[in-house]
Amino acid sequence: MMDSRDDFDANRPVPVWDQNPPARPTWKSDGETTVFENPWMRVTSHPATAPTGAPATYVVMRPQNLAAGVLPIHADGTVTLVGQARFPLANYSWEMPEGGAPYDEDPLEGAKRELAEEAGLAAGTWREVLRMELSNSVTDERCICWLAWDLAEVDKAPDPTEVIALARVPFMTLMREIDRGAVRDSLTVATALRAYHMAKEALIPGWLAHAMLTRV
Amino acid sequence: MMDSRDDFDANRPVPVWDQNPPARPTWKSDGETTVFENPWMRVTSHPATAPTGAPATYVVMRPQNLAAGVLPIHADGTVTLVGQARFPLANYSWEMPEGGAPYDEDPLEGAKRELAEEAGLAAGTWREVLRMELSNSVTDERCICWLAWDLAEVDKAPDPTEVIALARVPFMTLMREIDRGAVRDSLTVATALRAYHMAKEALIPGWLAHAMLTRV
Repeated sequence: MMDSRDDFDANRPVPVWDQNPPARPTWKSDGETTVFENPWMRVTSHPATAPTGAPATYVVMRPQNLAAGVLPIHADGTVTLVGQARFPLANYSWEMPEGGAPYDEDPLEGAKRELAEEAGLAAGTWREVLRMELSNSVTDERCICWLAWDLAEVDKAPDPTEVIALARVPFMTLMREIDRGAVRDSLTVATALRAYHMAKEALIPGWLAHAMLTRV
Repeated sequence: MMDSRDDFDANRPVPVWDQNPPARPTWKSDGETTVFENPWMRVTSHPATAPTGAPATYVVMRPQNLAAGVLPIHADGTVTLVGQARFPLANYSWEMPEGGAPYDEDPLEGAKRELAEEAGLAAGTWREVLRMELSNSVTDERCICWLAWDLAEVDKAPDPTEVIALARVPFMTLMREIDRGAVRDSLTVATALRAYHMAKEALIPGWLAHAMLTRV
């Protein structure tokens, strides 16, 4: 059976500066106990041995889904963002459409679902642009992010606990708000900065890059 | 007493597209129970009310430190990265120096400590460039990231559970490895992309931007 974590981990290249690494000591897990579990996370405790050989107890928060996010870019260089109240930080956050994809689902299908449910959009072109490990000292959370364009409207179908607001803003306005610290969601920040990089480096079509980078 | 979380949250601007927001329903916490705690994380469970009015139980993983990271940029446009085995994803990760700053510490002091301990460097110039909420649906983890230049060598003092490797590579080589998916740590990915953005937009000194963007 497909597990999106296995695919995520298997296709992890080694950087050019580390092509013939020396033998290196690793962390060793000597067992696993689940100390908490609900549908969104599992917390596991492990007797462990550190790379230095020191004994340790390591506790990891393991989300039950792979995070999938998408920045939808319209032909005029604007992007659609969603606003929602977030419980953990007790704040209101503006973000790109994103959510959890079960590990037995193709993460791209999860991103398509979030784009439709939250933003009411479907995209003709999808480009995977980032794979990140969100907090690798205490969690095993993995995320995949896409850019999407050639957008068309579809019916929205929000989650029963969500109240979603929408904004359509010029891409460079989003960049300015990241600069100001007004947009802080890590997936959105990294994906927008990656989109800027791809536009500047001609890694996306010229007409799209030109529209995104326009400030007038 | 200073709490870096309060400062982080208090100075959170509202985006320009949302300056006069309508009244919006928020999440409401109706209590808190600690279901797990160690020196690195606390997991709390809350009877809660969703923005839609639906009852819910919300569980949040709350790190015991604020994440602080720094990308050190040498005058020749290279950056110093650290390689280490990470327990949660059972992999080997190349990253900028980063670590946890206790909430009663100035996060910049935490970043300076990580730069010295992991990379053996001190910096004459520090520029805060990103504040992110790493995983805002199930954690309240906050991070602050800096660029640092005017670098000088100091003694290293690694953590007793860490075995750290060092690499000094051209900034654009780091960008290419992010593009390939060989560098996946979210703080490193976002900060490197932010550094690229600042270099292209003349938000850092010209001599530094020129050195960073050079490919030869």
